[in-house]
Amino acid sequence: MDPDAVARAFVEHYYCTFDTNRAALGGLYQDNSMLSFEGAKTQGTAAISEKLTGLPFQQCQHNISTIDCQPSGLAGGVLVFVSGSLQLSGEQHALKFSQMFHLIPTAQGSFYVLNDIFRLNYA
Amino acid sequence: MDPDAVARAFVEHYYCTFDTNRAALGGLYQDNSMLSFEGAKTQGTAAISEKLTGLPFQQCQHNISTIDCQPSGLAGGVLVFVSGSLQLSGEQHALKFSQMFHLIPTAQGSFYVLNDIFRLNYA
Repeated sequence: MDPDAVARAFVEHYYCTFDTNRAALGGLYQDNSMLSFEGAKTQGTAAISEKLTGLPFQQCQHNISTIDCQPSGLAGGVLVFVSGSLQLSGEQHALKFSQMFHLIPTAQGSFYVLNDIFRLNYA
Repeated sequence: MDPDAVARAFVEHYYCTFDTNRAALGGLYQDNSMLSFEGAKTQGTAAISEKLTGLPFQQCQHNISTIDCQPSGLAGGVLVFVSGSLQLSGEQHALKFSQMFHLIPTAQGSFYVLNDIFRLNYA
């Protein structure tokens, strides 16, 4: 497994899904998954899916600036660190953000998100 | 173990050491540790210590804005996600940064840094 290839493919899939079909993001998490979104923690597929679909904006577009990744030490696990900007529909300025994911291999040969931490970078 | 307490104590110790005695940071890493600094990867105590002490600035001051943490799934491991700003001596403007650490318990009851990813957030 090439962690860089896993990270790039995941990042493309995640933000494309976020921007076009946010309700489908729930499928990337499992019941032991945790999301920290701007300091608010939620755990488990249902709660995370509810948090993401309930965010107070509809149309958005993520633009990715950097992707870093490292093996996490957990068998086959990959840490992915992303920076980029988030353009909300109707807003003049894009918001800068940083986000990290801890990806864990599944029995089906794919990955799920065990850890997800998101922060806006206020200028 | 309270991951929030571990994260806060680590962050305070790490950036205080960085700002006052950078050469001592090497003691926080082990030979399987990885550092990605602005996209450049190094591995192992010696290489990471050399990278950090060789950064092209001397006096600096980190100011921390946010600390997020989650259990990493690796026995006792903690993921720490930090945002803040870095003031370099003689520079007018502070640089915004984001950084993540994966902390692993040691046999001595402390933690070492297995994963470290650092990025400046360009405005």
